[in-house]
Amino acid sequence: MQPFFAQRFEKVEPSFIREILKVAANPEIISFAGGLPNPHLFPVKAIDQACQDVLREQGAAALQYAATEGFAPLRQYIADRYLARHGMQVNPDNILITSGSQQALDLLGKVLIDEGQDLIIEEPGYLGAIQAFSVYQPTFKPITLGEEGLDLAALDALLASGSNAKLLYGVPNFQNPSGVSYSRANREALAERLVSHELLMVEDDPYGELRFEGEHLPPIAKLAPNNTVLLGSFSKTVVPAFRLGWMLVPDWLRKKVTIAKQATDLHSNAFSQQVLHRFLIDNSLDAHLEKIKEVYGRQRAAMEAALARHCPPGVSYTRPEGGMFLWLTLPASVSAMALFDEAIKEKVAFVPGAPFYVRPEIQNTLRLSFSCVDEATIEEGVKRLCRALARML
Amino acid sequence: MQPFFAQRFEKVEPSFIREILKVAANPEIISFAGGLPNPHLFPVKAIDQACQDVLREQGAAALQYAATEGFAPLRQYIADRYLARHGMQVNPDNILITSGSQQALDLLGKVLIDEGQDLIIEEPGYLGAIQAFSVYQPTFKPITLGEEGLDLAALDALLASGSNAKLLYGVPNFQNPSGVSYSRANREALAERLVSHELLMVEDDPYGELRFEGEHLPPIAKLAPNNTVLLGSFSKTVVPAFRLGWMLVPDWLRKKVTIAKQATDLHSNAFSQQVLHRFLIDNSLDAHLEKIKEVYGRQRAAMEAALARHCPPGVSYTRPEGGMFLWLTLPASVSAMALFDEAIKEKVAFVPGAPFYVRPEIQNTLRLSFSCVDEATIEEGVKRLCRALARML
Repeated sequence: MQPFFAQRFEKVEPSFIREILKVAANPEIISFAGGLPNPHLFPVKAIDQACQDVLREQGAAALQYAATEGFAPLRQYIADRYLARHGMQVNPDNILITSGSQQALDLLGKVLIDEGQDLIIEEPGYLGAIQAFSVYQPTFKPITLGEEGLDLAALDALLASGSNAKLLYGVPNFQNPSGVSYSRANREALAERLVSHELLMVEDDPYGELRFEGEHLPPIAKLAPNNTVLLGSFSKTVVPAFRLGWMLVPDWLRKKVTIAKQATDLHSNAFSQQVLHRFLIDNSLDAHLEKIKEVYGRQRAAMEAALARHCPPGVSYTRPEGGMFLWLTLPASVSAMALFDEAIKEKVAFVPGAPFYVRPEIQNTLRLSFSCVDEATIEEGVKRLCRALARML
Repeated sequence: MQPFFAQRFEKVEPSFIREILKVAANPEIISFAGGLPNPHLFPVKAIDQACQDVLREQGAAALQYAATEGFAPLRQYIADRYLARHGMQVNPDNILITSGSQQALDLLGKVLIDEGQDLIIEEPGYLGAIQAFSVYQPTFKPITLGEEGLDLAALDALLASGSNAKLLYGVPNFQNPSGVSYSRANREALAERLVSHELLMVEDDPYGELRFEGEHLPPIAKLAPNNTVLLGSFSKTVVPAFRLGWMLVPDWLRKKVTIAKQATDLHSNAFSQQVLHRFLIDNSLDAHLEKIKEVYGRQRAAMEAALARHCPPGVSYTRPEGGMFLWLTLPASVSAMALFDEAIKEKVAFVPGAPFYVRPEIQNTLRLSFSCVDEATIEEGVKRLCRALARML
């Protein structure tokens, strides 16, 4: 049989991050490469109890096919939490449970992206979004993500240039890969542009609950609700294995994304939705999040301190107020890919920044994850990394 | 905000089956409409035990992100079962766990279907496949499904006419909606055509384990392994809520579907994969299937007997040897949609056949499900249905 592929898949190749993560999985290596939440913080006992309670109380009904939109009480919980955290009035009908927020990206691509259409994305941008949207063959239009958020002057220039963009993708809280958050002023100005230019923002917010410093800022979906699809996830706050996230969609989009979801997988795992809901009502999510934030905050501080101690001059890094990632910019002459090879000799790993750019020319950035490494190991790992870097300068 | 949709989604509307199922959910109505497995047969206690065992033994590791391809021991179990049941030598590397076999359809559409390309499908055909593939905008080429399987003369004529088809979709065992199975001779002749015409068959087999009568027949994937993607599902054999299925793909397709899966949802629910695997190794799937087949076989016999007793002349129906569905063909003058309205007055429901055709002109067929209705209720429901039908003749 002669292999054949759809035109959209002919050139698709695996990301080299998979190869990097394989190298980093060697237990002798200190890895800042992964993007995993810390498993020591998973509520194993409470999940066990929730499984038993759901099966004892619901029996076979907990294991049957279920509604495409998701488990209604879980959607209500999510709506209630938006009200409690942000004062947002959300109709649970507008919340669709997805198989991780990754699936929300795929569904939005299906329903909204035409081949060749401009799609505005942060630079650097979340690799999973680039991969999900690429299937629908948009033309990516990167806009620099600076310390305060999106570069609005660059956005204005793009919009004034006659771009046909209708979609803008961003991660306003503790972005993956950079750890950067949009400031309040940046959010407000961006929301104005969404409305005045009839743009729809895909506001991806997997880390918003993981703020260990500073004040919570309003979702852009609160500022421009009709122009925003807000994505959320339980992967970073409760457990990743359930693959449960959600999207909050405006009325005009609800019916079509539901059809797309039905055509894609009928519905997300209904047993896990019930178990998760049970966990959420029988335990305090806030108390659980406090534990995660205490650990991640401490580890971010340790990483920052180690970088301050060991980094050679000419290296800069972000100072995330939450989330799991910190971003290094090396002197322009240093390739992060070459540094990766040197660092592996020192038995420390990270993710080079190149795959987070849709333009390949920027080579001197890298991502460090602090979620899964304790403070002493962070100190040792950063020391090794800086030793490798010093050799290259 | 002015609504906008990708061109592929502009005309997509919800299936009217959703509306029919809402009507049929009224507890006063005897419903032959749903396509659900019988929840009385779900192994609730054994699943409860498996959840506890997995969490006790694996702890947090059971709840972490996992491999895109799926849980390796589950893939090995599936490979071993193909060997035991069909003497098929299967490399577990070629098995990819999916979120139900519905997701396999979406992934195959992504990787293989170009807009406007011919796609050969049974007539009547599985609605979920029509929905999943429609997103990728093929030109459906229906081939009649007769009592022995696909109409090979019609297939030959299509292939001789210069069709650019590369894909053929079918459900060779107890098809949804018709209950029909391909005969051994039909499978062998079809496999020859796949090879000689360089066609790839998507062989969807959610019901193959549910044969309550007759001999097991070889999957077409055994006869033409390089020209077949074989789909399987645990939704009809264990529990649907986990949304776990799989695809067995030829080597040449493995890498691209894995990338598509990663871009779509990273991986399927990893906790449920481990629980399911634990259930499968700690219990006998064969013993569990015997219970299901005993019940479904009895209910199919009851439905057949009731139809023989009550049906007016001019109605024909299939005699499935497994699965969950039986298919009625009414006299050509009777519209199944009109009959649905009459039947609801008698408080009995079914699914009219029209949505299972990509050509809208055939109106006189309907699907009856016997999986969830006990024998006495089947007798009463068929009596009511035939009363409604008699009024229309």
